[in-house]
Amino acid sequence: MQPWERFKAIQKKLKAYSLVLGIASWDSHTEAPKKCFPYRADMLSIISGESFALQTSPEYVGAVEALYAGQDTLSTQDREEVHQAKRALDKILKIPKEVYTEYVKLLNMSQRVWEDAKAKDDYDLFEPYLDQIIATQKKLVAYRSDTADPYDVLLDDFEAGMSMAKYDTFFNTVKGELVPFVKEVLAARPTEKPAFIDAFYARGEQKQFVEKLMEIFQYDTDRGLLKESVHPFTWNTHSQDVRFTVRYLENYVFSSIFAAIHELGHALYEMNIAEALDTTNLNTGTSMGIHESQSRFYENIIGRDKAFWSQHYQSLQAIFPKQLGKVSLDDFYLGINWVEESFIRVEADELTYPLHILIRYEMERAIFNEGVDVKSLPTLWNEKMKTYLNIEPKTAGEGILQDVHWSGGAFGYFPTYALGSAYAAQFFYTMKQDLDFTALLETGDLTPINNWLKDKIHQYGKIKSPEALILDVTGEPFDPQYYIRYLKEKYSALYLKG
Amino acid sequence: MQPWERFKAIQKKLKAYSLVLGIASWDSHTEAPKKCFPYRADMLSIISGESFALQTSPEYVGAVEALYAGQDTLSTQDREEVHQAKRALDKILKIPKEVYTEYVKLLNMSQRVWEDAKAKDDYDLFEPYLDQIIATQKKLVAYRSDTADPYDVLLDDFEAGMSMAKYDTFFNTVKGELVPFVKEVLAARPTEKPAFIDAFYARGEQKQFVEKLMEIFQYDTDRGLLKESVHPFTWNTHSQDVRFTVRYLENYVFSSIFAAIHELGHALYEMNIAEALDTTNLNTGTSMGIHESQSRFYENIIGRDKAFWSQHYQSLQAIFPKQLGKVSLDDFYLGINWVEESFIRVEADELTYPLHILIRYEMERAIFNEGVDVKSLPTLWNEKMKTYLNIEPKTAGEGILQDVHWSGGAFGYFPTYALGSAYAAQFFYTMKQDLDFTALLETGDLTPINNWLKDKIHQYGKIKSPEALILDVTGEPFDPQYYIRYLKEKYSALYLKG
Repeated sequence: MQPWERFKAIQKKLKAYSLVLGIASWDSHTEAPKKCFPYRADMLSIISGESFALQTSPEYVGAVEALYAGQDTLSTQDREEVHQAKRALDKILKIPKEVYTEYVKLLNMSQRVWEDAKAKDDYDLFEPYLDQIIATQKKLVAYRSDTADPYDVLLDDFEAGMSMAKYDTFFNTVKGELVPFVKEVLAARPTEKPAFIDAFYARGEQKQFVEKLMEIFQYDTDRGLLKESVHPFTWNTHSQDVRFTVRYLENYVFSSIFAAIHELGHALYEMNIAEALDTTNLNTGTSMGIHESQSRFYENIIGRDKAFWSQHYQSLQAIFPKQLGKVSLDDFYLGINWVEESFIRVEADELTYPLHILIRYEMERAIFNEGVDVKSLPTLWNEKMKTYLNIEPKTAGEGILQDVHWSGGAFGYFPTYALGSAYAAQFFYTMKQDLDFTALLETGDLTPINNWLKDKIHQYGKIKSPEALILDVTGEPFDPQYYIRYLKEKYSALYLKG
Repeated sequence: MQPWERFKAIQKKLKAYSLVLGIASWDSHTEAPKKCFPYRADMLSIISGESFALQTSPEYVGAVEALYAGQDTLSTQDREEVHQAKRALDKILKIPKEVYTEYVKLLNMSQRVWEDAKAKDDYDLFEPYLDQIIATQKKLVAYRSDTADPYDVLLDDFEAGMSMAKYDTFFNTVKGELVPFVKEVLAARPTEKPAFIDAFYARGEQKQFVEKLMEIFQYDTDRGLLKESVHPFTWNTHSQDVRFTVRYLENYVFSSIFAAIHELGHALYEMNIAEALDTTNLNTGTSMGIHESQSRFYENIIGRDKAFWSQHYQSLQAIFPKQLGKVSLDDFYLGINWVEESFIRVEADELTYPLHILIRYEMERAIFNEGVDVKSLPTLWNEKMKTYLNIEPKTAGEGILQDVHWSGGAFGYFPTYALGSAYAAQFFYTMKQDLDFTALLETGDLTPINNWLKDKIHQYGKIKSPEALILDVTGEPFDPQYYIRYLKEKYSALYLKG
């Protein structure tokens, strides 16, 4: 077989392994009974092992290397397929199997220890594991590159093309512009939080409204489904099977509403990828940052816009007449954009959210680049919270232990969250040149907006890199000023108009 | 590696493939969105192909053959493992791969054609496919054995040790004893069917009662879950993950109640298999017939007994006060054991059920042994319905096209349904020597009955063959007279007491 045919034949098998492992993971995260896991973990590690063996087999590696060497003869799309395959191989090929296996074991243990430590507010419990994870991450990066800075390698893993130099520019802008702006907003904000925000909203009715949102956003239930899970997520195997989950907190209805719109953003991206790409390795979102740009576009730019609710607030009021019947649209709009200093990232409002990410970026940078001692991390965390958000966590659970990422070795992931929000704002200003955004939201029909995102962004999957995509869509490279402008315009109007 | 180590190592991989294919199948049958199937089918066939290649690899086949040849040196359990592996290989090894692949394709098409034909009541549509399936089945059997009667081979596939000779004895007893008895019961039965049977029972409340049944029968929700699907089924990958489904028909509450108890019988069997067997190929029920004996024991012998409802009828009445508040326990008991001539097997009562199976057995026997023309099957079906149940189907949908089995090539499967009911009765008479069955049901606590079944039957999985199990439990070989006696005692008391 020629390299291309060999590449495609093995890739198809890899995709088959990925499909069955994906379905098993969906089951594990949504309904699998708790005692099934030991046996299941054992069996799934066998299937992962078969897939790993195939991906690292001389036949496959040889084909990818040969195609990579001769990439100039390939079409753009085929070349991108080869790049993706090469990028995936580069991450695993140079790492000795024992080192990798030991690391996987460490992470499995660490996640359980982290859960325990978080529940007990006990950083000391988690600290030795975190120490080992960081040490191993440094070692793993060293296998892959003896020149690059470790944190640069990790940042590029989660967002191709990104580096400390680029993130520094971005976060310096965030810091310089938003930290003082947030202070200004908070000083001007009414002191009393609207009571309807944490009133009681029954689960069944919340679900009813989430189903209404699925219609509004034109989610195709022939190609997916809604389910419940502890942490909301979107899951997909290919363009014809894209599902998502939410959870229902009866004392915080915004949790299900905005998690649903957020996940619908991820889901629409995956559903809108050209079906033809399903036979390639390009049939998913191009990066974490671009994915997050879509989820946050839907959640914040559409879902927290007054024009959007001018069409749909009545439906929500009809479902919750007791809680919202007497709340005006203006008051509701203020409520869904209520700004406050808070400890927990996932519950933060749109404006303070990037400050939560800034803190994590600075922490990770210090860990990998400045050799900060793992013991001192909680103090450092609390200092940064004080500096940027003017509050100090009382416990490790509402401070450094709140997020799962580090216990899973995912360093370099957090920055993509803020980056995604900033990408979204840049897309937004381009979109407004083509579409009358507010007028469209006031019609209630999201078709033109959905189509714009599909045509410009979604359909390409991984054919375009994040950098190429932003340039093609907006006509310029990534520029964080759009994000600052978007936040300042919106939150000035909301809080500083007087 | 020695043959035993090689056998176990490859078997573990086969079990891993089986696990992921199992999870995918659960997903497909309960919630997968309808457009995901073409891609999924393609991917799953790759995984099945990997598993098939491994099972038929010289390494595995060689190990199994070597162990089979030296089986005298093995422990009972290890020997049984080898027998199971050998039996599975015998079914596939001699069949040329192209013949097998063509057959799988034919069955895939046939199932869709059958669905269509059933919906349109059009046997002619399905007939050419059925003809080809039967022809291929005969060919497949010929590859495997040039001496055995084709139908004998198929009967043994679904119930090890069974043959036409043995089933003839069984069904002659059924025919000779039950056909006249059913006539007698029907003549004595009140003419008016109790109205509460097909009253309206809301879905949500039905589910509430099914959850109550899960508690009553001591189903362990840490090792399984309840879900909905079009056709109720039990699903399991190992003793720690055994799930089941029901459906809710709002105009026929018995459907969810008795399907739930039936599936709970299958599920308890699988859950009670010794956990140590999960690392072997013996960790599932020993045969279709024995499995059905457990589901029918729970559904009919426990679930349609008056003593059982003396404890639980009040809970059902509390959920459905309007429908059942004024129905006495005696009337309810008659209702759940209402005997009538009916067209559809899956809706048939306990007493006429074996006659539906008798008809199918005679049909299959005629097809494979008497070379009956496929064109004449509908006429033959209707004649037999007239003979044994005194009614004649008006359409193919309520006649020969009602069941899915033949479109999937499953000839020889039906007889195990009646056989299972008969096994259950034989177990029942043995149990009554050890336990005061009625008194136990009147306490509401099923623990002693569950434990008896677990100790005597469930725990062994496939360690014991159906024949050995019946002999060990009851002290004698299978004897259909217990079944006849059970039905006559119960239904005489219900209908012929006067």
